[in-house]
Amino acid sequence: MDANSIGAPPRDVLDHLRRTVEEDWALARRRSWGEAGWLEAASALGDGIARVVGADPGEIVVTDSTTINLFKAVVGALNLRPKRTRIVSEAANFPTDLYATQSAIDLLGEGHALVLAADGHDSDDDLCALIDSNTAVVVLSLVDYRTSRRRNLARINAAAYAAGALTVWDLSHGAGAVPIDLNGDRTDFAVSCTYKYLCGGPGAPAFFFAAARHNDALDLGLKGWLGHADQFAFELGHRPAAGARRALIGTPPVLSTIGLQAAMAVWAGVDVSAAAQKHEALSSLMLDLTDQELGPFGVSVASPRHYAERGGHIALRHPGGNALVEALADADVICSFRTPDSIRFGFSPLTTRYVDIWDAVARLRDVLKNETWREDRFAGRSSI
Amino acid sequence: MDANSIGAPPRDVLDHLRRTVEEDWALARRRSWGEAGWLEAASALGDGIARVVGADPGEIVVTDSTTINLFKAVVGALNLRPKRTRIVSEAANFPTDLYATQSAIDLLGEGHALVLAADGHDSDDDLCALIDSNTAVVVLSLVDYRTSRRRNLARINAAAYAAGALTVWDLSHGAGAVPIDLNGDRTDFAVSCTYKYLCGGPGAPAFFFAAARHNDALDLGLKGWLGHADQFAFELGHRPAAGARRALIGTPPVLSTIGLQAAMAVWAGVDVSAAAQKHEALSSLMLDLTDQELGPFGVSVASPRHYAERGGHIALRHPGGNALVEALADADVICSFRTPDSIRFGFSPLTTRYVDIWDAVARLRDVLKNETWREDRFAGRSSI
Repeated sequence: MDANSIGAPPRDVLDHLRRTVEEDWALARRRSWGEAGWLEAASALGDGIARVVGADPGEIVVTDSTTINLFKAVVGALNLRPKRTRIVSEAANFPTDLYATQSAIDLLGEGHALVLAADGHDSDDDLCALIDSNTAVVVLSLVDYRTSRRRNLARINAAAYAAGALTVWDLSHGAGAVPIDLNGDRTDFAVSCTYKYLCGGPGAPAFFFAAARHNDALDLGLKGWLGHADQFAFELGHRPAAGARRALIGTPPVLSTIGLQAAMAVWAGVDVSAAAQKHEALSSLMLDLTDQELGPFGVSVASPRHYAERGGHIALRHPGGNALVEALADADVICSFRTPDSIRFGFSPLTTRYVDIWDAVARLRDVLKNETWREDRFAGRSSI
Repeated sequence: MDANSIGAPPRDVLDHLRRTVEEDWALARRRSWGEAGWLEAASALGDGIARVVGADPGEIVVTDSTTINLFKAVVGALNLRPKRTRIVSEAANFPTDLYATQSAIDLLGEGHALVLAADGHDSDDDLCALIDSNTAVVVLSLVDYRTSRRRNLARINAAAYAAGALTVWDLSHGAGAVPIDLNGDRTDFAVSCTYKYLCGGPGAPAFFFAAARHNDALDLGLKGWLGHADQFAFELGHRPAAGARRALIGTPPVLSTIGLQAAMAVWAGVDVSAAAQKHEALSSLMLDLTDQELGPFGVSVASPRHYAERGGHIALRHPGGNALVEALADADVICSFRTPDSIRFGFSPLTTRYVDIWDAVARLRDVLKNETWREDRFAGRSSI
């Protein structure tokens, strides 16, 4: 039940890896950069992801980590709004997103200021109210990593656009779970990991989205040979590749990319809207069963009740915290804990079954009933 | 014969990958970040590499790509020399190193200028002559990717130190092949890929070295949660981790890291100086056989004759260029071509046998004798 941390492995991922090691790496060797598609994978996989999140071919590449991609996106946005000095985010954003945003400001900024909605309970309207005519970019996570609250992508994008600002979204806790329509909702930039609901494998390369309308003037700051218009010309100066490919920097981690390739081969056969519907049904079942089975033991629901306001996981709340999560792991239910009090269950539309949710809730009920978790072995500390 | 492009796979790399997929990813799931050592690998592998390149434990981490690590190192060096505005490199440096250096200057710089030794034939003394009292950092590749010329690490580090400047070295075409003593030669920063002579697998995470004496004040510019002093405390502001770990940014690509782990398990049993001696003997044999067997067909040696001035590969020169390389591939000898005229043969001290060199030279002689390469199918274009 930790699809929000790490999605399940595709059934044939080891076959993909075996072919890569035994044929492409051991025998074809450097020629595999071309013949096995190692260099082209960044775009090929990006196009597959584009179908899942409502983008167009050429707008997404797979590269680097979410943090590095967010840095590039914020630099790109700041370069497109050179006269504006205000950057809006929220203190409840995932910490590394704030570190990357602050990194961009520190490196590029001249009198720039990061303005944070601060109390963690700000509504979408509260955030929109922070966007003004001096705002260059709004940097937000679509889904809160603790509570699973989902922001209204369309509304915040519209408010930013109306003020002449740009948006950078981190989709990590939503992509592959909830419906996302990047272009339909007029998103400027987005990034996401691929190892949660997309099932790309631990630390699989993240993705980077830039709306095609920004291509001409897009300067992402940190540049490398993979993002050059003609990589093997070995030119002295950098000329950006077309579209999102300019976000590529260095040599891609092939084995990790192959893991994601196995996952995207599965996704290629998935009806994306049917998957989102299943995800809604799975997480709604979790809410209903929680109320019915766990409420009597003092468990409450931290996540929003309306599906449109929820992301990939359901966060429960109980003073037992991490000790409960560890007791559940002993009962073969893997979930995770985030301070101060979020117990998170993530549901993959590709792999989670309804019966899994029933079993997980039943085992949590048994743990609470038997009070076996009270040792408090790990209390108060977020899970790895 | 393309160990300079991609080293051979460790014999048991698939066993490592199988365990990672079937046990750590599929079953232990998010707990593997701790229990399977996924988070700790950056330092554990870095310490293994430290033994190979003359660094101390804690000074090297494995992370990101060479280009991104070079960017961080240059930013770190510029931040340590805030009043100096001159950056020295050479136009013959590997292009992405120049792109990353220029990226750092464009983002951070105020009146900074990149000064390039320009003709590709500059001696170490020529480079030292460019270092002055306004030089913040010298950014060089230890080994030229075309000719294999090796710079004198100690001499250039000493010249930089005497002028109060810092050095950033890209070791990609040397690490795991030639003897390197980073601390003995008083290096400030170094980066390298791990997929050539270190055999970490295609696009395996690169490494980052910062001399421990710089730890206290080191600000690498681009920061993320993996480089935080307490990653799972989820603090609002970034506090750098100790030592080189502050260079970590986002979630590491685990499958690619496991490939490198299999390689470093091999390296753990290697006598590093014996490996370097074997590498010298291999590449000297290549020179001797080239003179004896290929000289009559118009093949010349582009690489230096003295081993101390050579890196991991031997570059030959012939007007046939890429067509020869492709004809050799048809004869099951994989080497590579770099414009304008470098035919590169890379030798791994771990995997290349003396007989392999004899066979490669004999097949190249046969290709030249039979003139089967004259189709010029790929003339003038660098190999992928």
